[in-house]
Order: sequence, then structure tokens, then C-alpha cells
Amino acid sequence: MFVVSTRVKSRFQVETYIVHFADRLIAGIWKCGNPVCAGIDPRPQSLPQGFLEGFTPDPVGVATAIRVFGKGVVDVVAKLIPVVKFQAAFYEALGPEGSKALQETARHARKQGMIVIFDGKRNDIGSTAEAYANAYLSVDEQRADDEASSAWEVDAITINTYLGSDGVNPFLEAAGHSEKGVFALVRTSNPSAVEFQDIVADGKPLYRHVADRVVDWAERYRDSSGYSLLGAVVGATYPEQLAELRSTMPGIFFLVPGYGAQGGSAADVAPAFNDQGLGAIVNNSRGLVFAYNRPELREKYHGDWQRAIEHAAHEMIADLAEHTHARRLRSPGD
Amino acid sequence: MFVVSTRVKSRFQVETYIVHFADRLIAGIWKCGNPVCAGIDPRPQSLPQGFLEGFTPDPVGVATAIRVFGKGVVDVVAKLIPVVKFQAAFYEALGPEGSKALQETARHARKQGMIVIFDGKRNDIGSTAEAYANAYLSVDEQRADDEASSAWEVDAITINTYLGSDGVNPFLEAAGHSEKGVFALVRTSNPSAVEFQDIVADGKPLYRHVADRVVDWAERYRDSSGYSLLGAVVGATYPEQLAELRSTMPGIFFLVPGYGAQGGSAADVAPAFNDQGLGAIVNNSRGLVFAYNRPELREKYHGDWQRAIEHAAHEMIADLAEHTHARRLRSPGD
Repeated sequence: MFVVSTRVKSRFQVETYIVHFADRLIAGIWKCGNPVCAGIDPRPQSLPQGFLEGFTPDPVGVATAIRVFGKGVVDVVAKLIPVVKFQAAFYEALGPEGSKALQETARHARKQGMIVIFDGKRNDIGSTAEAYANAYLSVDEQRADDEASSAWEVDAITINTYLGSDGVNPFLEAAGHSEKGVFALVRTSNPSAVEFQDIVADGKPLYRHVADRVVDWAERYRDSSGYSLLGAVVGATYPEQLAELRSTMPGIFFLVPGYGAQGGSAADVAPAFNDQGLGAIVNNSRGLVFAYNRPELREKYHGDWQRAIEHAAHEMIADLAEHTHARRLRSPGD
Repeated sequence: MFVVSTRVKSRFQVETYIVHFADRLIAGIWKCGNPVCAGIDPRPQSLPQGFLEGFTPDPVGVATAIRVFGKGVVDVVAKLIPVVKFQAAFYEALGPEGSKALQETARHARKQGMIVIFDGKRNDIGSTAEAYANAYLSVDEQRADDEASSAWEVDAITINTYLGSDGVNPFLEAAGHSEKGVFALVRTSNPSAVEFQDIVADGKPLYRHVADRVVDWAERYRDSSGYSLLGAVVGATYPEQLAELRSTMPGIFFLVPGYGAQGGSAADVAPAFNDQGLGAIVNNSRGLVFAYNRPELREKYHGDWQRAIEHAAHEMIADLAEHTHARRLRSPGD
């Protein structure tokens, strides 16, 4: 359990016991010199060629396969990038065995020092939201692991705010208590995001109404550097909205999906960063984690899927450094 | 697997193989003569006095306890009411062991002939929504159980539509294929539902925008009686909106939370029903499943928690029959 309330002093002075989620996130970003998040969406059909053959073709076997695969991804990226995001849907699709695979892979990622986001977009009314918050954000001191943790051992969760503040506050309270984080959906990256999120009321679209409430909710949960443990999901595929939201949501970390396979470029995500290269983490799922399916990488690395992922991670880090202020996260000697 | 495409002929002629979700739901309602849904939200602290003492105080023990409890609830209510709704949050709060308890309890409820709703309010973009849909709504023929089913063996799921149609269609397609159901959040029952759901644009509140899209989406998935496999969650705590939505959403089954502990009365839910007493199922969680915590029932049944739940179920059935058209679901001889 985190007990010491020390803060990050500067980009080159990071204390061992950092408690506020935003501080931990910033420390991770500085340490790696980039704001990349690897999105692990383990679609069985996208696993490396022949990978599934080593496992039984039932849910237990497939769940074991995605656990082994996920740990293999973590082993590659933990040295390079600060954050990993697990997409709950692909684990749940395998039933309870899949849930167990998610838990074990998340634990492995935390042990490797990564910040782990559970991408479950959870939402419910007050007392039920509290149960979700306890599931993912509480610190469970009953657990006998090396480090006390919640049932799911993650650092942050994504939530959907359609139910309003009594569905959001339980997540914030739990996160405030356990020094974890929350990312609220504001502007999603999918084509039909516009259907409801762009409905205009009182002169502004719905996503701006949500954004403004996120800023209000975030206020009580800021660290000494001004960042809140409440962040926002803002898609890379709508760069204008990303720029608009960056200016209206100071001190709110953005989790930016949509880079890569969904069509967002490094130039598209550039507005998410402030002058110091902070303020956002950029997620890449398929383009990073399934990089070995790119013919040129398969050939180059002779089917070594982990080296292909490593290649793609370096490529993305360089791409962001070239086109965004994320280049300023690197120390002069890098 | 359901292969015969027979339909419900009348309220007294229900065929064995009913395929469309709405037909199955209506058949269940007619068979029981009431539209009650028991909401199983297994809060460990609300279990019967002494119940947890028979189990180890770790997540495995607590998960076993809520599985035994949930099956005990099902054994009582399966004879009386048609639908049971499992609140995912309380199971997930126990980690993968909890997920397994949910799966086993849901399977038990289906074996007892109940229609099972997974209340997870899931939502995500296209390909990820598809993974959720496959998790909860697909028919998995690989599974070696008596009856092929999805990974989670449920009949319907609740979803949140903030991401628009490409986040909703995968659920509808999977449900259409497997003859299962979907309930989309339209108007939730919590106090802060108003914060976003009542934002007015183009002369109507957001929940009406969502309702209108639900009607559009539902169109392609109607059965011969006109009901769609896509239903809507509309809270009992906002009776005016319930009446308004009933009139604008014909052929859409409502899942109505908020009766009982949250303050909704039978009179409040009356507008959810049509003249035949169809069109809605009314959920009761705490008031039904934890009825043994009511002092007068604890005394009356000498701590027999199952008899207390049975009492509360009869009470709710009678309450709805007295104040709503649900009384018309009873055959003359009842």
C-alpha cells in the first residue's frame, strides 16, 4: 500500500513512493520519455500465426493463450512505454476464464512497473457504481499478494457518464482514497460518436456539456502540479474537437484512442499535448500489439512477433516525437 | 440451440420452441401471470444474518457464498416470476471468482426456466462492442453443456448508447442471430439522471433523442406481434417521463428499475404497461432479494430468508396487479 505522500519534484527527481495518480502517470511518462499506451485487445484471430496451436481449443485454452500472449506483449513494451490498457470486452468474451486471464496479465504489467488501465467503460447508479469502483479502484488489504490491491489490480478505469454525477462520484471517491485514476468518456473515436455527442444544446454540443462537468468533478481531485486523477477519453479521429477540448480542459489528462488502425495520425493527436509534452497518453491497440501481422515486419523479424511489436513501439514513439510536443519528454541525452 | 421458429399463438397457447426474445419474454410473463424481475445485487453486507459464516472470508469464499445465495433466491422466485437480472458490478467486485459465481448462478436460473438479464450497461466502439456482444449474446456451439450458449449464458444484456449506432448494432446483430435481447439505457432511475439526460436540444431532452434512435434501431428486429428484441431501460422514479416514453415507443419492452427501495411505487410504473398488461417488466432488487432484512418478515418467518423473499415476491405481484394493467396477465382461474 502507498503510504508516503511524496511528490514528483522535477522531471529528473522522481521519488520512490508517489501517491497521486497524475503524479504516477507523469513520472511514468518522464521515465520512458514518451506518452504511449499499448492497448491490449486480445482478439484470438489476430494472435501470431500458429500461437493458438499450443493450447486446447476451448475457453480455458484460449484464455491461457491470451494470458501468455498478453504477458509476452508486456515483457516487450514495459521497457519502452509507461502505460498499458486492457480492453475488458475481449477477456469477457471468454467467460470467467478470460476475466482471470485479464487479472493475471494486469498483475504482471504492474509488477513490471507499468500503469494499468482497465478499459471497461463502466457505468451505473450510485450504490452500484460504488461496487464497480470497489472492484477496480479500491485497495483491498485482505489480499495476500506482495502488494495490497483491488480485486482487479489496475491503476485506472474508463467510465461512461450518461448517468450523471451520482454515477461518477463513487469512482472519484474510491480513486481519491486509493490513489488511482478514472478516465471519463467525453469524445469517442468511432464514426457514430457524432450521433449523440454532437447534439447541440445551449450553444454547445453534448460532448462539451460532458467535458464541462468533467472539469467540475476533477477540481476536488487535483495534485500539487494541478493535474486531476480524473482524466478524459478524447478520440484522435476528431482533431478539431481534440484541440477545442484541450483548451477548455486544463489539468485533465487525455487518454487518446484512435491513433493508427482507426485513422488518427501523430499530427492529429498533437493538439492533445501542452508545451511540455504533457497532458495526454496516446493509445495504440492493433497497430502496436498486432504489428507482427504487417507483412514487412513479419519478413524482417522472421516471425518473431515480440521483435515486431518492439519495432512498432519504437516507430510510434519516434512518430509522436517528430510531430508533437511529446519530443520534449526526452532528456537531452536520450 | 433453438431451431424451431414457432410463435406464441395466444396467451393460453405457448409452444415449446419459441425463438424471438420478445416472444420468450411474453411467454414467460403470461406463464407466471406477472411482469416481475428480481434484481440480484449480491451485496455481501446484506446477505442473511450469519450466512457468510459458513464460508472462508476471502474472495473465493465470498464468491461461493453469493453463488449459493443467488441460487437460493432463484429457487424461490423461479416458480413465481419470469425474469431475473444480475447486476454485474457486485460480482465483478469479487474478481474473477465473482465472475464465475455470476456465470454459474445465471446458468442455474436458465435451467429453472427463467429469462436472465445481464445488467452490465456495456458500451464500446464497433469491433469491441462486437466482442461484448459475442460474450453475452452469441450462441457458442463449442460449449458442451446441455444447451449451447454464449460464454455467459444469459438471455439479454443492458447497454449504454453514448457511442451511437456503431456501438449498438453489434449487440442487435448478435441478439438477432441468437434470439436474445438487448435493453438500452434511455432514462435511468437515479437522482442525477437529469444532468445529461434532460439537456434539451431541438425541443426535446437528450433521453428523447436516445428514445427516438432506439425506436429506429428496434424496427429491424421486431417479432410477429410487433415487439422488438431491443428494449429500453426507463426508471420508475420519473413517472411522467415513463408515460411520455410509453406513448412514443410502441413495441419496445421497458425494463423498469426503481420500484421499491429507490422510491418508485406500483402507481408510478402503471404507465409502462399497455391495455393488455404487456410492454414492461418491473425490477425489484433490494426490496425483494433482501426482504428478510425487514424486521416484520424476519420475525414472521423466524429467520427463514427464502420464505421472506417468497412473501415479498407475492406482495409485489399483488401490488402491481392492484395498481396496474398487469392484473390482466392473470388467467380467470388464477
